[in-house]
Amino acid sequence: MQMQSSCSLPRPKSPPMARSSIIPSSLSDGLVFTAGAFLALLIFLGLYCFLSPTPIPNRLFSFSPSFSSTSSHIDDTYDPPDETFYDDPTLTYTIDKSISNWDEKRRHWLKLHPSFSGGRERILMVSGSQPYPCRSYHGDHLLLRSLKNKADYCRLHGIELFYNTALLIPSMNFFWAKIPVIRAAMLAHPEADWIWWVDSDAIFTDMEFSLPLDRYRAHNLVLHGWPELVYKKKSWCSLNAGVFLIRNCQWSFDFMDEWASMGPQSPDYEKWGKLQTSTFKDKMFPNSDDQSGLVYLILTGKGGWRDKIYLENEYYFQGYFAEIVGRLENISARYIEEERQGPAVLRRRHAERVFVSYAKEMKVQLGKQKGADTGPTGWRRPFVTHFTGCQPCSGDRNKVYSADNCTLGMYKALNFADDQVLRIYGFRHASLVSADVQPLPFDYPRSEE
Amino acid sequence: MQMQSSCSLPRPKSPPMARSSIIPSSLSDGLVFTAGAFLALLIFLGLYCFLSPTPIPNRLFSFSPSFSSTSSHIDDTYDPPDETFYDDPTLTYTIDKSISNWDEKRRHWLKLHPSFSGGRERILMVSGSQPYPCRSYHGDHLLLRSLKNKADYCRLHGIELFYNTALLIPSMNFFWAKIPVIRAAMLAHPEADWIWWVDSDAIFTDMEFSLPLDRYRAHNLVLHGWPELVYKKKSWCSLNAGVFLIRNCQWSFDFMDEWASMGPQSPDYEKWGKLQTSTFKDKMFPNSDDQSGLVYLILTGKGGWRDKIYLENEYYFQGYFAEIVGRLENISARYIEEERQGPAVLRRRHAERVFVSYAKEMKVQLGKQKGADTGPTGWRRPFVTHFTGCQPCSGDRNKVYSADNCTLGMYKALNFADDQVLRIYGFRHASLVSADVQPLPFDYPRSEE
Repeated sequence: MQMQSSCSLPRPKSPPMARSSIIPSSLSDGLVFTAGAFLALLIFLGLYCFLSPTPIPNRLFSFSPSFSSTSSHIDDTYDPPDETFYDDPTLTYTIDKSISNWDEKRRHWLKLHPSFSGGRERILMVSGSQPYPCRSYHGDHLLLRSLKNKADYCRLHGIELFYNTALLIPSMNFFWAKIPVIRAAMLAHPEADWIWWVDSDAIFTDMEFSLPLDRYRAHNLVLHGWPELVYKKKSWCSLNAGVFLIRNCQWSFDFMDEWASMGPQSPDYEKWGKLQTSTFKDKMFPNSDDQSGLVYLILTGKGGWRDKIYLENEYYFQGYFAEIVGRLENISARYIEEERQGPAVLRRRHAERVFVSYAKEMKVQLGKQKGADTGPTGWRRPFVTHFTGCQPCSGDRNKVYSADNCTLGMYKALNFADDQVLRIYGFRHASLVSADVQPLPFDYPRSEE
Repeated sequence: MQMQSSCSLPRPKSPPMARSSIIPSSLSDGLVFTAGAFLALLIFLGLYCFLSPTPIPNRLFSFSPSFSSTSSHIDDTYDPPDETFYDDPTLTYTIDKSISNWDEKRRHWLKLHPSFSGGRERILMVSGSQPYPCRSYHGDHLLLRSLKNKADYCRLHGIELFYNTALLIPSMNFFWAKIPVIRAAMLAHPEADWIWWVDSDAIFTDMEFSLPLDRYRAHNLVLHGWPELVYKKKSWCSLNAGVFLIRNCQWSFDFMDEWASMGPQSPDYEKWGKLQTSTFKDKMFPNSDDQSGLVYLILTGKGGWRDKIYLENEYYFQGYFAEIVGRLENISARYIEEERQGPAVLRRRHAERVFVSYAKEMKVQLGKQKGADTGPTGWRRPFVTHFTGCQPCSGDRNKVYSADNCTLGMYKALNFADDQVLRIYGFRHASLVSADVQPLPFDYPRSEE
């Protein structure tokens, strides 16, 4: 409201001499006047469009009913009556029926909803867990803290989060359950350019890190993995299917159809189990699984999908918890030292809404430091720490890991992340293994010298 | 990017006769031309500001470093180096030290961050729970589902959510714990006009309902309650302190200082316990509690706070679960009937992002129906269903309620709400007490006739 009253400029008072210029008396003056007005409008529109992709309000040019009567704010929740793919009775949200021409359908929807076009790429994060309590004592509490962790990351980065607790296709359970959810989410969110699936046991441990989306512009599916492990070692662990980015496009629908055809609801399920087991000597159980299925498609090139699949390993797109949790105290101490020694901007208190710009400052600072690398030998915060094999909910963890390693490890990772958020609210944990928190003094951590 | 290329209008080809008009040869022509240009600019700016509160990009008028080099999008995460309240060493996030001149401090911050000025009022929802597992079996699972429920509501309505699991002041535990969190959140979110505290056991059961904020423009604190129960019955239950809206302003900081002075960390804690117990004959335990404290301040008018406190009872700003859960099946059936009989727009599939405009359509439809009232005799969906007294986490429920009433009731309310979200993804629960879900056919529920 203030903006409007300060924005609406009063009509300037014209001096007597200029009065006749503003109201030209001759036709030629009128033409000159109109020419000036027209040229000014052209220049302004051109400058505006160049400097800001925000559409000029429709209401300047039409009587679009998107005008909200309670304020003059453009209503981006308005849905025009024009037909879209939603009005097609043959389109279903379920996985049994393929989608076609999705790119065109989505493009058409975006044209009718211009608020969602242009600007930076939109991501929808999707995660989920079972609809009934966990068997293990800490299970649901860890899931709760993990959901909070995801909500924190998304809030800091302007990303939407959909957490699902419904098993959409009863026969597609466990790790297969995510495929129907992702598919339904793509249809429900045509404005999203990417769906980012993140397992419930994957924790964001670097709140400051943003995905380098430019890197993936020529690809449609991004996972953490190593090509040499795919092609040379033929390992079912050469990538991780618990965290991935998938582009909201026709390729992805087709890909998910193929991927899902290896699942338990498919008549080919057993065949795929045998094929995967014979291909991957280190596969741990005989049934077809989503991860082995992915490796198989990349290894064999079957279907031609691999050209659009990016195996990311330059940072912890998802990181194996066992090589991370033991280092978290040290990483935390190094960051505190950077903030203590570094420029004042690293210690400056600020609103949560401007978090990302301070993250950039820290990135610059880290860029100057030796050893501030990602990976098992560096002290850069790991982006995502994935407790794969811990099974905190069922308790059926891989016996290679102790309950302490897993459970305590998860609490440490969660507190490590929570410290980065609580900082904005003026507090931090007493230690990574403590639920207790302490207030932070002004100019922390330099004030602790 | 598309928008830019479609936006930048080509320079029109000028006919030979007009050429000399565009490049005036005389001084008076120049004045007329300039006058025309200036007037066009004024009219355009005025129209633009009137129709859209989005600030005209700073870069048209200054060289603000908020220009992002990777796109021409205004960077609203930019924090200028100008001093704000954050740079004041005497300001603390903790509750032991008062804040002063907050309205001016906040106004100054908003001036430096114009993206957050104007438009509709911003709300930050805040909730939380303990940092260690619940004692009761279903406890953490219900908290997890409840957090998902809040995240769903916030995502649908463009509201931010902060879920806290840290006890900021050890001595301010249980229901007192929220006050330090809200205070810290106000400082961390100067862009928020309101903080909306929602207890962890309060479930959003009408996803379509939006807060009627206009109603509260003259108040700073909104709770569910009844004046007659305050003044006539002098009941500690005349309002509920588990769900409230508090304005982000100096009044609220001062109010919270007074409210917190009744808490366990205060030297007056015992005195307040005795005062509250002698004032409210139905108070259930002798220690000072936040809710009785609030009723006391309104009843006595002490401190003059009550003039800015709004007791809302025209809808379930928060609703007592025991008068709601038994009616949920019936309410669900009535809504399905409305959708079946009503106009096609109520059944139209749509993106989640335009949910709010379909909610408005349903509101119009309900306005025509007898009995579609809120309250114990109506069949309007209750906005918030609050399981106060159930204590799902500790299990120490009020013995008036059975475990089934509470636990089963919470699952029903959560599924009732989840149905409204899953609908957008093409599914619904088989029943309110079932975790199983079913796909929805096109034109549901008319397709089921």
